[in-house]
Amino acid sequence: MKADASVLELAEDILAGSDRALSRGLTWVERRGEFAEALLDRLYPHTGRAHVVGITGSPGSGKSTLARALARVARQRGLTVGIVAVDPSSPFSGGAILGDRIRMNDVAVEMGVFIRSLATHGALGGLSRAVADSIDLMDAAGRQLILVETVGVGQDEVDIMQTAHTVIVVNVPGLGDEIQTLKAGVLEIADIHVVNKADREGAEQVRAELRAMLSLSATDGQLWQPPVLPSIASREEGIGPLLDAVADHFTVLESSGEMKQRRRRMVRARLIRIVYDFVNEAAAKQECDSDDLLELVIRRELAPHAGGRALLARLASHPGRQAHNV
Amino acid sequence: MKADASVLELAEDILAGSDRALSRGLTWVERRGEFAEALLDRLYPHTGRAHVVGITGSPGSGKSTLARALARVARQRGLTVGIVAVDPSSPFSGGAILGDRIRMNDVAVEMGVFIRSLATHGALGGLSRAVADSIDLMDAAGRQLILVETVGVGQDEVDIMQTAHTVIVVNVPGLGDEIQTLKAGVLEIADIHVVNKADREGAEQVRAELRAMLSLSATDGQLWQPPVLPSIASREEGIGPLLDAVADHFTVLESSGEMKQRRRRMVRARLIRIVYDFVNEAAAKQECDSDDLLELVIRRELAPHAGGRALLARLASHPGRQAHNV
Repeated sequence: MKADASVLELAEDILAGSDRALSRGLTWVERRGEFAEALLDRLYPHTGRAHVVGITGSPGSGKSTLARALARVARQRGLTVGIVAVDPSSPFSGGAILGDRIRMNDVAVEMGVFIRSLATHGALGGLSRAVADSIDLMDAAGRQLILVETVGVGQDEVDIMQTAHTVIVVNVPGLGDEIQTLKAGVLEIADIHVVNKADREGAEQVRAELRAMLSLSATDGQLWQPPVLPSIASREEGIGPLLDAVADHFTVLESSGEMKQRRRRMVRARLIRIVYDFVNEAAAKQECDSDDLLELVIRRELAPHAGGRALLARLASHPGRQAHNV
Repeated sequence: MKADASVLELAEDILAGSDRALSRGLTWVERRGEFAEALLDRLYPHTGRAHVVGITGSPGSGKSTLARALARVARQRGLTVGIVAVDPSSPFSGGAILGDRIRMNDVAVEMGVFIRSLATHGALGGLSRAVADSIDLMDAAGRQLILVETVGVGQDEVDIMQTAHTVIVVNVPGLGDEIQTLKAGVLEIADIHVVNKADREGAEQVRAELRAMLSLSATDGQLWQPPVLPSIASREEGIGPLLDAVADHFTVLESSGEMKQRRRRMVRARLIRIVYDFVNEAAAKQECDSDDLLELVIRRELAPHAGGRALLARLASHPGRQAHNV
């Protein structure tokens, strides 16, 4: 009963806009504490109002500076803003080693921008779930613009981008061949291209290349043509037009009906990630007895794929500590 | 019927040791072709004889050269050898862009070492599944030593290491602070440490640091004390003692009963990864009708975690095209 009361109280405080409560809730959610799911359930009906903008690009492209510049300009325009930043860490450290430095920006900072850093943990899918949950909390807390800044490498990247309505891909001049591959690959996910550090040599060439690639992939009746915008984030140059483009993209998504499709894809991807995590957790806790299955596979009496199907069936019949019938 | 016949034929040819059949089978398995699972089912009873050795370490540590040197020395000792190499690729490319260069070493090469490169695809868990399946094929084909060489970054890394009986972690002098973190994190997974490029300045210091860290983490009654071995892979120096350590580790695993535990953990991890992939595929194919669930979550009438549980239950009741009752 005490648990329920403290969840309800924290939820009320978050909905009322308390930064302290939001910070505490984010910690619960990141740690997957006992009441995290109850808190998320409670807040979920109050979500869906924020514009979530993902910012990705290769390491060194200045994503972090750009996110902060965008936040400042958005604040000047009267928007409430939150930032969810994904911190790079070794896949091997599992959070233990870097644990001390991950919550450096845990509190409301200049001009009321709430910044939360999440460490990249080892668990498959765990990071993107934490990002999605953190977005929900900021959304419920009334943040209108939520910027999600990622590390720019790894599989989680793609997953995290599925949590955003609008994806900004940050390019910089002078990163060589590798960035070419990246650019080609991100064409599909980018809604807005930024060429940051636009005062550097080669910036105009990068913009021209991007425009050329975009025109190649353009299709008839395309509702949104991703713009290629220059910026110098460290001097806050080009940020206004970028924020305009972000707002325009949101308007086009809504007016064209594409937002409906996108929300659908986002929810689908999110449910799948939750299933991943659920499988992981159930297996780790040995909630379902799989000893005999493992033995059969080890003895080569059952092939792995058949074993996987059997395991799935058992997991599904052990729906964890909070069973829901739908 | 034709399908079954061609699967049986290919399986027989692989078991008979045909490199051409092995190569074709690996392509089936990597592409998840129609008959891939049937082929794996057929070959699985003939697996479990190989010694699987994972080789990891940060980019630039010389893993690839080391793997090839190990393979050559093992061949000189009369062992049959296969290498599964994981190719780095952008998470954004999804394999499309790099598709052309991934199968460069597809055939039996010098001294009968069979090398197969796998590209890092976008699908969560997909890569480690492909690695595990490729190991099965090489194992069934009679390769006694199978070296798995990874890219040294990302989550897949940890998963892939769960496919190996013995894990070699390659260190090099002069990579700075980052490697320190890596070293600390990999203590848990390393069975053998190699300090490669041992003629470089600082090599002895890296070895001393590793030994110091290992002595800190050593416990009473520990059956295997991970050695720290120097090598210069490019000149094939230190490879003999490394291969001795690999063989010693296998012997200790078997004689101590630890191999039984390890096989169990490996099979468990593999089944879980298969479940991930199964969920991914079923969701992509929309094999299970989740439209109403998505709608409920989008309308905020159902919270994501409850939605995830409901989705899991439905997936489990749609066990894909090849149902198995266990």
